[in-house]
Amino acid sequence: MIVVMKPSASQEMIDRMIRRVEELGMKPHVIVGVERTVIAATGLERNGVQAELEACEEVEKVMPILAPYKIASRETRPEPTVVTAGSLTVGAGTIGVIAGPCSVESEEQIMQVAAQVKDAGATALRGGAFKPRTSPYAFQGMKEAGLELLAAAREATGLAVVTEVMTPHHVDLVCRYADVLQIGARNMQNYHLLQAVGETRTPVLLKRGPSATMEEFLLAAEYILDQGNRDVILCERGVRTFETHTRFTLPLATVPYLREKTHLPIVVDPSHGTGIASLVPAMSAAAIAAGADGLIIEVHPNPSKAVSDGAQTLTPAAFEATMQTCRRIAEVMGKTMQ
Amino acid sequence: MIVVMKPSASQEMIDRMIRRVEELGMKPHVIVGVERTVIAATGLERNGVQAELEACEEVEKVMPILAPYKIASRETRPEPTVVTAGSLTVGAGTIGVIAGPCSVESEEQIMQVAAQVKDAGATALRGGAFKPRTSPYAFQGMKEAGLELLAAAREATGLAVVTEVMTPHHVDLVCRYADVLQIGARNMQNYHLLQAVGETRTPVLLKRGPSATMEEFLLAAEYILDQGNRDVILCERGVRTFETHTRFTLPLATVPYLREKTHLPIVVDPSHGTGIASLVPAMSAAAIAAGADGLIIEVHPNPSKAVSDGAQTLTPAAFEATMQTCRRIAEVMGKTMQ
Amino acid sequence: MIVVMKPSASQEMIDRMIRRVEELGMKPHVIVGVERTVIAATGLERNGVQAELEACEEVEKVMPILAPYKIASRETRPEPTVVTAGSLTVGAGTIGVIAGPCSVESEEQIMQVAAQVKDAGATALRGGAFKPRTSPYAFQGMKEAGLELLAAAREATGLAVVTEVMTPHHVDLVCRYADVLQIGARNMQNYHLLQAVGETRTPVLLKRGPSATMEEFLLAAEYILDQGNRDVILCERGVRTFETHTRFTLPLATVPYLREKTHLPIVVDPSHGTGIASLVPAMSAAAIAAGADGLIIEVHPNPSKAVSDGAQTLTPAAFEATMQTCRRIAEVMGKTMQ
Amino acid sequence: MIVVMKPSASQEMIDRMIRRVEELGMKPHVIVGVERTVIAATGLERNGVQAELEACEEVEKVMPILAPYKIASRETRPEPTVVTAGSLTVGAGTIGVIAGPCSVESEEQIMQVAAQVKDAGATALRGGAFKPRTSPYAFQGMKEAGLELLAAAREATGLAVVTEVMTPHHVDLVCRYADVLQIGARNMQNYHLLQAVGETRTPVLLKRGPSATMEEFLLAAEYILDQGNRDVILCERGVRTFETHTRFTLPLATVPYLREKTHLPIVVDPSHGTGIASLVPAMSAAAIAAGADGLIIEVHPNPSKAVSDGAQTLTPAAFEATMQTCRRIAEVMGKTMQ
Repeated sequence: MIVVMKPSASQEMIDRMIRRVEELGMKPHVIVGVERTVIAATGLERNGVQAELEACEEVEKVMPILAPYKIASRETRPEPTVVTAGSLTVGAGTIGVIAGPCSVESEEQIMQVAAQVKDAGATALRGGAFKPRTSPYAFQGMKEAGLELLAAAREATGLAVVTEVMTPHHVDLVCRYADVLQIGARNMQNYHLLQAVGETRTPVLLKRGPSATMEEFLLAAEYILDQGNRDVILCERGVRTFETHTRFTLPLATVPYLREKTHLPIVVDPSHGTGIASLVPAMSAAAIAAGADGLIIEVHPNPSKAVSDGAQTLTPAAFEATMQTCRRIAEVMGKTMQ
Repeated sequence: MIVVMKPSASQEMIDRMIRRVEELGMKPHVIVGVERTVIAATGLERNGVQAELEACEEVEKVMPILAPYKIASRETRPEPTVVTAGSLTVGAGTIGVIAGPCSVESEEQIMQVAAQVKDAGATALRGGAFKPRTSPYAFQGMKEAGLELLAAAREATGLAVVTEVMTPHHVDLVCRYADVLQIGARNMQNYHLLQAVGETRTPVLLKRGPSATMEEFLLAAEYILDQGNRDVILCERGVRTFETHTRFTLPLATVPYLREKTHLPIVVDPSHGTGIASLVPAMSAAAIAAGADGLIIEVHPNPSKAVSDGAQTLTPAAFEATMQTCRRIAEVMGKTMQ
Repeated sequence: MIVVMKPSASQEMIDRMIRRVEELGMKPHVIVGVERTVIAATGLERNGVQAELEACEEVEKVMPILAPYKIASRETRPEPTVVTAGSLTVGAGTIGVIAGPCSVESEEQIMQVAAQVKDAGATALRGGAFKPRTSPYAFQGMKEAGLELLAAAREATGLAVVTEVMTPHHVDLVCRYADVLQIGARNMQNYHLLQAVGETRTPVLLKRGPSATMEEFLLAAEYILDQGNRDVILCERGVRTFETHTRFTLPLATVPYLREKTHLPIVVDPSHGTGIASLVPAMSAAAIAAGADGLIIEVHPNPSKAVSDGAQTLTPAAFEATMQTCRRIAEVMGKTMQ
Repeated sequence: MIVVMKPSASQEMIDRMIRRVEELGMKPHVIVGVERTVIAATGLERNGVQAELEACEEVEKVMPILAPYKIASRETRPEPTVVTAGSLTVGAGTIGVIAGPCSVESEEQIMQVAAQVKDAGATALRGGAFKPRTSPYAFQGMKEAGLELLAAAREATGLAVVTEVMTPHHVDLVCRYADVLQIGARNMQNYHLLQAVGETRTPVLLKRGPSATMEEFLLAAEYILDQGNRDVILCERGVRTFETHTRFTLPLATVPYLREKTHLPIVVDPSHGTGIASLVPAMSAAAIAAGADGLIIEVHPNPSKAVSDGAQTLTPAAFEATMQTCRRIAEVMGKTMQ
C-alpha cells in the first residue's frame, strides 16, 4: 500500500502515520521526495485499510498494490479452470454454447426450441423460470412449473439446463432441476445469494453487473469460491454507458483482460450485450475471436411472440448460421466447438 | 405507443402490424409520412409490449408514451407523501436528517455518536448492522448485536433508527429493531427483497442503484408500493460514471426531476455520493438548495478509526457546522429543519 | 416528429400546437388517447425543431422519427462506399490495415517500422507529426519535419500515409504529404476543421469522439460529406465509461450497427480502444470477426522507448502474429486481406 | 512515481528498471514486499514517463504521485484568482452571473433580453454569434453581425459580453467585440484554439468537455495559462453519463473539488447541465450552495421561439425569480452577488 502524504504534512504527522502503518501489521518504508513524502507499506493489505488511511487528514491518497481477490486470481492458480455440467464443458480450449429462450413459456415452446438449438450445436439449454423484471407488472416467470419443463427438455435432448436463481431460499429448489445456477446481473452483489450458491456444489454462471468493475466482478466470484464452490463461470453481458443505440455496451476486452487475471472460464452474452437481434451474430463471432470460452444466446421459435426480450432474440435459423461462423472462427483460434 | 415502420416496410407488413396492435388491445392510428409510416397505438401500454413489437423485422423502433409506474406517479397522487417514523419526518416542507456511522462498532461508539448527531440537529440515527461489502474478507457487520445497540441508542436519545436489511429472511428480525428499513444501492433491483419489505408496514428508505435510470428507480419503488407499503423514501446516493476523482458522481438534478414525476419524498446521501469527507458539507448544502426533503450523512467520533467508509465520514464538529449552513438554506427555501 | 402533450394540456394548448406544427411546414395528425393527446407531425423534420417544440410548456416530450444525417445514410445510398488512397483500400470486402508508431520520432525509426509493418501485411503507414497532447508540457510532434519523414517512408515502401491534422490552417500543408487525413477523437466536433478537410479531395479517417453518440458521429461525417468530400472512413476507437482497467471501452457493436445505418467503411483502433498492448491482438481479431473494414494499430520497433503511447504499442513481432490470425478470420468472413 | 513490478519479475528485470528510473533523472527507492517489488521514483515526473514505464513488460502498473498541471495548481498559488472583465467580476467571494440567449438572433431580441437580464441582476451578457452545432444543417449563428449586436447591447446596458470563439483564425475578430472569450465544451481539447486564446489578454471562460476528467480539464486550462493569459474561468456544464432524463449529468461536486486543487474561479452552467428549463432554478441555487463563483444561464424573451436550445432556456420572469433565491443563498454562504 502506498500512502502519499500531503505537501503540508508535518514531520509529526509523518511519524504518526508510520506508527499507524506498524499498528496495522505492515512494514513502513519512508521515501522523502522533493515536494512530498511517501510511505510504502509492505505486508498484508487488510481489507478496509485503504479507506481507513485515506480518512486521515494529512493523507493525500492511498494506492493499493495487491489485488483484493485471492482464490479467483491466476496468481494462486495459473492453470485454467474447466467447468463441466452434464453436456456443457467450458474452458481450456473447449467452447460451450448455452442457448434458448429468455423465459420458459410452455411445454411446446421449450421442447421445440431445445431440439432446435441442439441441432444447431448448442451444448446447454437456457430458459428463465424465475424472471427478474424491472416492472412489478411484467411477467415474472412460470416458476417451479418452468423448472419442470426445463428438466423435461433435458430429458428429451440431453442438454444441460442453465437457469436463474433470484433469492437464497429458492436455491435448494432450483438445484433440484438445474445443472448450472445463473446469477443475474442485478444480483451480482446480492451477497447472501452468492453465499447460498457458494454452499452448493452446482456450477454457477455469474453475470457481470451493468456497472461493476473488474475488481468487483472478481470479488463477487470470490464470495462463491470462498464458500467452497469452485465451479464458477464468469459472464460478460454488457455494461451501462452513455450509448443508447444498443441496450448495453458490450466490452469484449473483458475477455482477454480477465484471462490475464483469473483462471475462471469466461462466456459472453451478446443478446443482452446488444439488445438487438441483428447485431447478435456479429458480436457472437467477435466474442469467439476475442478468446471467449463460450456464449449464451437467446433463441426462440418465434421472437416476435416471445413474452420477454423478443427484440434481442434470434430465430433458430439465425442461430444456426451464427453457430457455423463461430465454429470456423473457433477453429482459427485453435479451440474445440461442437 | 408509437411504432415507427422501416422505410422498406410493405403495405402487407403495415397491415400485419395494425392487426397486431389491435390484438394487443390498443387502438391503431396510421400516419403515412413521406419516408415511412408510423402507427400510433393508444390505450393500455401493457408491459413488455414495446420489446415485443420491436422484435418484428419491419419495425424500426417503438417509443412508449406512458410512464410504466403508476402508484409512484404524481399523476395518480398530486399531493406530496410525508413519511413519519418516530422522530423522523420527511417531506412536504419538513427536512429530516439521518446521521451516524457507516457501521455499528461498539456500544460506546454508537451511544457517543447518537448523542453527538442529536445535539447537532439530526432527527434520525443511521448505522449498519448487516453490511454489504464488496469483498468477502471485509467486516460484515455486528448483525443482531448491532441492531440491539441501535435500539439502545434510540432508547437513550429518542432518535429513530434507520438500518439496512439485505435479504428477505432478515426482514422480520430487522423490523423488530428498526424504524426505517434501508434498501442499499446494490439491492435496488433485488425484487424478492423489495416485495418482502413491501409486505411490512415499516417505512423504507430506497437507495438508487449506481447505474439505475429514473424509470428503474421508480419501478423499484413501485415493487414496494404495490405490496401495500406506501411509506417509501427515495434516496439519491450517486451514480457510476467515468469520473474517478469522487467515489460516485452525485447528480442533484435528480431532486427537482423526481419532484415533477413522483409524490414520494427524496433524500440525498452526500457521503456515498462523493466518497470524500471534505466535499460533504458543500454537497449537503447544495442538496437542500436543490430541494431535497432530507439528508443521510455518515458521522463518526473518529473517522480515521472507523471500520468502514472512514474517508467519507464527517467528524461530529464538521457535521454540526454543516447542519448550521443547511438550516439557513432550508429557511431560504421556505422549509422547516430542526 | 411525435409531439406528446402533457395530460394537463387544454384543448386550446393542443390547438395552438397544431398551428405551430403547420407553421413549421409539417402536417399534423392528432391522436387522442385515454390519458393524453399525441400529435404526429409528418414532413421535413427541420433541425432544431425538436428542441423548439420541447420548449413549449404544455409539451411532455418530442420524439424525432427521421435520422438527421442524409448523405451518410444507407437509405440514400445502399451500396457500400469503398475508399482508396494509394496502397490503401477499405470497404466492400477489402480489409485495409494501417499500422505504425504513435509519433514520428526520427528517420531511422519511421523507415524501420514502415518496412516492418509492410512485411507483416499492413497496407498503409500511420504516424503522428502533429500530436494533440493532454498536457502542454508533453511532446507535441515533429511537425513538418515529421511529414517529410512520412513521405520518405512512403517513397521507400509504397505504403500510403495516414496522419493527423489538428487545425484548419494546417490542412493545405498536411495534404501535401498525406494520403489520408486523420481527424482525432478530440476534434470530432471541431466543425471548422471538419469543413476544411471536407473542402479537400483527400480521403479522411474520422475518429469517433470518446463520448459521441452514433448520431453525433454520423453528423460529424456529414459535415465533411456536405462539403463535397465523399471519401470518409469512420473509425471506432473506444468510448469513455466507468471502466478503468482499460484506457477506453471498445464497443465493437458499433461495427454491425453502423453497417445498417451508413454506406461508409468502418475501421477499428484496438490500440487506443484498450490502451494495453497485451489486449490488442485479441481485439484486432474480434474487430475483423465483428465485420470491420480495417484496423489501425500502433506498432513501434521498441515500445518501451516510444515517446508516446508505449503501453498500447505492439512490437513488430506481435503485430505480425496478429496479422496472421486476422487474415484467417477475414477469410472466414469472406473478405480479402493482404 | 510508484512502479509496481509483476510478481514474476526477476532480479535482473528489477535492476534494469532501477537503471531506467535513474536514466530518467529520478531517484529510485526499492521496496521488497512479500509478493512483489515496488520502486518509488522521486524527483521530477516528466510527462509521458508513466506511459513509457508501463510499456515495459515486467511492470504491472505505474502510479504518478504529482499532479501534472502546475500554473493552475493551488499548490503554486494558494490565494484565489479573481477575474474581472468590464461589469463582470468572478471569484474570491464575488459571484458573477452571465445570462442571455443561446444564439444572437436579431437586434430586437438581444437588446430586449440584455435589458431584462440586467434588471434581474445579471452582471454579464451571453449570446452566441458563432454556433457549434451537431448538425451541418442547423443554424450556425449570425457570425460577425451577431458580434456587432452584442457590442451594441453592451453599449446600451453596460453588461460585459461573453461569447464563443470556435477556431484560431477567429480569435482576433472575436476579441474586438468580446469581454470574455468562451471556449465551448466540444473544443476543450482543441489545443491550437487554447493556445490562440492564451496568446491574447482577454479573459477566457473554459467549458469542461462532456467526458473530461478533472485532470484533463485543468491541463486544458494549463494550455491557456502557459501562454501567459492568467484570466481563466472554469465552467462546469455537465458530463455525459448513462442518464437520459436530463441532457447531461451536472456533477456539482466539481465545485468544492476544484476549489481544493486550483485557484481559478469556477462557474456553473445549469442550462446545458440539465437541458430542461424547469430544473434550472433548483440547480442554480444548488450551484451557489455548493460554492460556485458564478452562473451562466440561458434566458430568452420567448424560449419556444428560440432558434436553438429553447427547451433549456428560462423566461425573463423565471430568471428573475431564480436570481432572488440565489442572492439569498449567496448571503448564507457569505458571498456578494449583485
